[in-house]
This record gives sequence, structure tokens and C-alpha cells, in this order.
Amino acid sequence: MDWKEKIFKDVEKTKKASFIISKTSTEEKNLFLEKLSQKILLYQDEIIEANKKDVNSCIKKGYSSAFIDRLKIDKKRIDKMIKAIEDVISLPDPVGKKIWEIVRPNGLKIEKIRVPIGVIGIIYESRPDVTIEASILCIKSGNSVILRGGKEAKRTNKKLIEIMKVALGESLLPEDTVNLITSGGRASVKYILKLYQYIDLIIPRGGQSLIKTVVENSYIPVIKHYAGVCHTYVDKDADLDMAWKVVLNAKVQRPATCNATETLLIHKDIAEKFLPKMAELFRNYNVEMRGCSETKKILPDIKEATEIDWYTEYLDLIISIKIVNSLEEAIEHINKYGTHHSDSIITENKKSAEKFLKEVDSAAVYHNASTRFTDGGEFGLGAEIGISTDKIHARGPMGLEELTTYKYVIYGNGQIRE
Amino acid sequence: MDWKEKIFKDVEKTKKASFIISKTSTEEKNLFLEKLSQKILLYQDEIIEANKKDVNSCIKKGYSSAFIDRLKIDKKRIDKMIKAIEDVISLPDPVGKKIWEIVRPNGLKIEKIRVPIGVIGIIYESRPDVTIEASILCIKSGNSVILRGGKEAKRTNKKLIEIMKVALGESLLPEDTVNLITSGGRASVKYILKLYQYIDLIIPRGGQSLIKTVVENSYIPVIKHYAGVCHTYVDKDADLDMAWKVVLNAKVQRPATCNATETLLIHKDIAEKFLPKMAELFRNYNVEMRGCSETKKILPDIKEATEIDWYTEYLDLIISIKIVNSLEEAIEHINKYGTHHSDSIITENKKSAEKFLKEVDSAAVYHNASTRFTDGGEFGLGAEIGISTDKIHARGPMGLEELTTYKYVIYGNGQIRE
Repeated sequence: MDWKEKIFKDVEKTKKASFIISKTSTEEKNLFLEKLSQKILLYQDEIIEANKKDVNSCIKKGYSSAFIDRLKIDKKRIDKMIKAIEDVISLPDPVGKKIWEIVRPNGLKIEKIRVPIGVIGIIYESRPDVTIEASILCIKSGNSVILRGGKEAKRTNKKLIEIMKVALGESLLPEDTVNLITSGGRASVKYILKLYQYIDLIIPRGGQSLIKTVVENSYIPVIKHYAGVCHTYVDKDADLDMAWKVVLNAKVQRPATCNATETLLIHKDIAEKFLPKMAELFRNYNVEMRGCSETKKILPDIKEATEIDWYTEYLDLIISIKIVNSLEEAIEHINKYGTHHSDSIITENKKSAEKFLKEVDSAAVYHNASTRFTDGGEFGLGAEIGISTDKIHARGPMGLEELTTYKYVIYGNGQIRE
Repeated sequence: MDWKEKIFKDVEKTKKASFIISKTSTEEKNLFLEKLSQKILLYQDEIIEANKKDVNSCIKKGYSSAFIDRLKIDKKRIDKMIKAIEDVISLPDPVGKKIWEIVRPNGLKIEKIRVPIGVIGIIYESRPDVTIEASILCIKSGNSVILRGGKEAKRTNKKLIEIMKVALGESLLPEDTVNLITSGGRASVKYILKLYQYIDLIIPRGGQSLIKTVVENSYIPVIKHYAGVCHTYVDKDADLDMAWKVVLNAKVQRPATCNATETLLIHKDIAEKFLPKMAELFRNYNVEMRGCSETKKILPDIKEATEIDWYTEYLDLIISIKIVNSLEEAIEHINKYGTHHSDSIITENKKSAEKFLKEVDSAAVYHNASTRFTDGGEFGLGAEIGISTDKIHARGPMGLEELTTYKYVIYGNGQIRE
């Protein structure tokens, strides 16, 4: 059997399983999740052992320490996986929820009901925690899953899938509810992306080049979780004490996340008052500043920002700073250079806030709060599979509800159309 | 300026206009629609004149009469356009609607608000009524529009766009709210489909080969309105009088529509009782029947159905007929051969109905009613841009709400993340 045939068979089996998992009760799905949590605990040494082989092979090949860190599964990561499973067990099941209903003059009763999407393909890099965290969200929302992870995590992923299949078997769910594609190398991604009759949605998780490959090759709908070039705009009517505190938090509290602020915009009227103390705070946290020419007049010692900086997601203790002439210029800058993720205005002026919240074209727009809050948990929505920077289907935190679609169910007593 | 440059400029201008139209009030959008309706009435002779040139040129080139019929704009079609505009004026504006809200323990107030998608690209064939009907739905929901219609309707479309721009101008909306791409020939479609930074959603309207081209080439999210291979299943517990009436309606009431039934499935236990009278009714309406081998034992005079028939959307007075051994076989047939559009079960057995409604993986599933009801108007949702056979974002009738997305608006008083 060549690799294409093998992948096709796996995908076909996963599609078949989707019809069974889609009608499985919440209790049965939760039973699987409980079994999975027990099995991960039981087999944690085997998981860590398999992972060590992946890690050692990558160290030998000279992968970066950041890469190794994402790949590595230790006791702490195991605990995090188990915690994630417990969280998903406690979340309400969206399947079967009535979204809307109507009784028509002809007596037809129409209900709009949440149903699973079907088969979800997750294409990701060598982060084995995604293997568990993405699968449990898909399964709790009644979908089956095709996983295509990075080759460097091959042994770890195989072990995790083996354990998931044991848990599926013990809870009497189809073992093909989740399948991992390991054959075919890089070409397999392009092949998977053409199987639109079997896979209903693709979610790529990874860097920009992975997402680009997926978008450019997929015949299947894709929901992207692109980079977060997030902004905080300090308006001329800002409460400066609040602004210093919020901007600092948005940059330094966890700079490697997609909702951290990457660019600080400041209204020209308050820049001279605001910037020196802001710079002092940034320096205390070792934040590198890159400013526009106006900023450099106030902070002459910092680096000059280039056009590229305004487009850059640093994911690090670096911030670009720009002084703008107006609220309008701030909005225009954000809509041009941002990634439509999370942007905040700090102001005491309600009208300016309203304009900003309305006109900034982003998934999450904030008034007087840190951009760091864009997160399913912080929004009270529960665990998320990612933060969508797309506008179609899901925008912002993508949780269980966004992993479902709906159908119209129509009850009649012989109605015909005239 | 070469054609790529010209298209790019038009698309860029349309994107700019989207930021203005997105914040336009319902009153302003309705004013545009009223002006448009007046202008179409005022310039109807010019429209019909331009259309005549398109029609004559196509007649000379030997296009089919069905093609000419879709292309032709006469007084009746003008009236239909005006009626469509009036309908859209009367529909509620979805923009700004609060979908959900929450106040978090930290005091953050989070609102989920409906907002326009941005720029919607409509790629369609030579049906100039789509030019108006798609544009008004997109604009009422706060989007700007890129239109790429078939070259055979070039003169008609140019005239209609000219009139739309007059109406936009008179209602003080940006004239670039709608732009028509006419240059670049076939290659222009592929070029447009790459402009993901400017166009937020593509809706193809047309035959399967057009949709295939779009799906295979687009970097932009696509919502498809594929064919409708719809089924009616007559269960062993059906009320036969109801079944004869509903099946006949589903096939003959308007056979050229996507929600007309193409395949009749019948439980083996009632086939002998049901089929002869059904066949008589079909013959009265000149419906050509194509049956499976079991069907042919009861109706020996009809044609034999081939594997291809089960996949075929006839859009005509033709029906394929299959006798199945069980409800399960009916469901399996529908999920395999159907297009996930509209499917109905006729039965008095509630359990069988429930199973069918749950397990048939289609946008609209019916119990004891004609498949012909799948329609925004019939569902009480108002006008629709099409019936989505996709599962992502919009499923079934796609109206004004489905032409919007949402954003999270978060109100704080200095909250930072711990």
C-alpha cells in the first residue's frame, strides 16, 4: 500500500467514525475523556520515554532550544494535559442545543439545532500537547479528528494516539474517532488538503509558513489562527496612571503569547508627558523599544523603528512605539498593520472609545483593559482550540461551540409548496 | 495600466469603501436601496437596451435557449429586481445586534456584536439579476462588493453598476461600495482569488465547474452553493396519501430549483402498494422515471437507473427511484450520494423520524413535508444570497445574518492580567 492509499483509508475510516461520534451522548464522550485522563496518568512514563527519543534526536540534529522546549513532555506537561481534559469534561456539550425556532403560518415547525461539523483536520508542528488538547475539544463537540503533526514529534504522537485509542475502545467509541497521519512526508499535507469529500474543516496550528502552505493548497475550508500584531493606543484623554499599568501588562506579562501588545500608539498631545515614565517601566523589565522619529525626539536613546517593525509579531520583550496625530490615524494604523486580533484604547473620553471600538476591524477590541485578556477562559467560554483571526465561522477564541455547525430540522404534517 | 493593476486598484478601493459602509446607519443603507429602486425604474429602457445587445450577440454565437433565458432582462425581470430591493429594505439590519454578553468576576464587560464581514466577492455566470440581488444583500448587511460576472452579460452588468453608482452617490455612500471586474478574462478570476488581504469572503454562484475553479484556486474563504441532490424517503410506516402528495410536489412543483427532490427512496415493505399509483401521478406530469432493479420488478416499463443517476441533480422532470431494505439503508444512501442540501422522510413512526432527522447529514432535514421549502423566505428569514451546502459559517439559506460576522467588544476600567 503506498502512502496515499494508506492516508486515504485512514481518512475514510475517520469519516465513517464521525457519523457514530456525532450521535454519541455527552455522558459517553465524558466517559472517554475520563478514561483518557486515567490512561495518560497510567502510561506517563511511556509517554515521557517516547518523547525523550524525539527530543534526543532533535538535539543531535541541532534544533533550537525554543523548538526543543515546545517538543518536550515532562511531568509538568503531563499534568497540564490532565488538567485540560478535566476542564473539557466540565464544559457544557453544545451538540443538540436549539439555537432558534419558528412556527410558520402553514404549520411547519422549523428548529435550528447545533450539530458537529464532521471530520476536523488539525495540521500542526512538533508540539505534542496539541495532539491531546485539540483532539479532546473536537471529540467533546462530536467530531472525529485527523491529526497531521510534525515529524520531529513522531514517536510521542504515536504513543499518545495509541493511548487515545485504548481510551476510545474502553468507552465503546469507535477507535477511528482519531487518526494520526505519519506517512507521506511533506507531500502528505498537500494530499490531505484535497480530500474535501471526507474532511470538513482544516485548522492549521503553527508558524506563518505552515499556515501559508495550508491556505494556498486547501480545497477544504480553513480557519486560520494567524499571528497577533496587537496594539494599545493611549489617547490624549487617557488616565495616564491606568495607561502605564495597562500597557506594561499588555507587553510584559507573557510576551510570547499572541495577545501580547506589539505596538504602542500614543496621541501626540500626551506623548511628552507619557513616554518618559513608560520608557522607565519598560527598561525595568528589559523591554527593547523601537520608536518612530517623533518618539525618538522624546526618547533619543532607543532604536529607530522601520516599516517592517509595524508588521512584526515579536513574541518577545520588544515593543514598537509610534506617535500619532489623531485617533483616526491610530485606527488607520491598526487596520493597516495589525492582524485583526486584539487592540485596546486607553481613554476617559467615551466618544473616542466608541469610535475606536466600532472602527477597529479586529476580533477583540478593548476599552481601558489589557489586550492579554483575549482567551476562551478569560472570556468565560472555556477551553479553546485557538484564537481565530479569520472572520468566517469563528472569530477570536474558538471553543466547543465554534467546533459545531447547525442544521435546520423541519416538522410537518404533509405540507406541500404551492 | 495592465489588467492586474486595474483589478488591484478596484479591489483596494472597494476595501477602503468597506470601512465606510460598515459604519453606515440602517437609514442610510435603506435610502440607497430606495434610490436604486427608483433609478432602475427610471433607466429600465437603457438596461433592457444594453441587455438586448448582450442577448443578440449570444444568439449569434449559438448559445442555448436556457442560457439566453438566464441572460435576458425584460420588464418582468426589472419588476422582480425592484421587488427584491423592496424586500431587502423591509428586512431588519443585523449589524450592531448584541449576540451575547457577560460580566466577568474581574469586572470586564464583554459583548459579542454582529458586524459586517468586509469585502465580499461574488463570482458568477451570465445572470445579470445576480448583479443586483447579491449586491443589495451585501450592502444592506454593511459589506462592500466585488462582482465578477460572466462576459456574455458584460453590457448589461456595466449598465446596472453605472446605475448602482448613481444611487450610491445620491445617497452619499462611497461609490466604491460596489465594483465590477470586467478586465483580464478568465485569468482574472484566479487573480482575484489570491487577494486575501482585501477580500474577506468569496461566494461563487453558478455551475459545478465554476465552483470547482473557485474552490481549487482560492486563498480566500469560500462559501459554496453546490447542487441539490435532494431525497424523499417513504418509510414503511408512511401515510401513503400524504406520501403521494408530498413526493409529487417535491418533484414537479418547480423541478429546476436546487431543493426539488431528485431521488425517491422507498421501503421495500410498502413499495408494491406505493409505487403503481406514484408512477401514475408522475406520468400525468410527464416525469421520466429511472428505477433500481427492484423498482423495475414493479414498474417494468421504466428506464433502469445507473450508479450515475444516484449522484445526478436533474433540475428537470426526471426522478431516480430506489427500493431500500431499511431506514438505515436510506440514511446511508442519502449521506453517500446526496449533496447535504434537503432531505425528507415520510412516516407516521416518530422513532424512525427522529433517527432520520438526526443522522441525515444535510442542511435541512424534513419530517412529513416537501423538500421544496428550503428557502430563506419560506423559513421566515427573508431574502437569501443562496443555499449553502457548506458546513462552515453558513448552512442552508444564507441571508443577511450570514453575511455578517461578529467582534468581541470589551469594556474595562484598567484591568490587567495577573
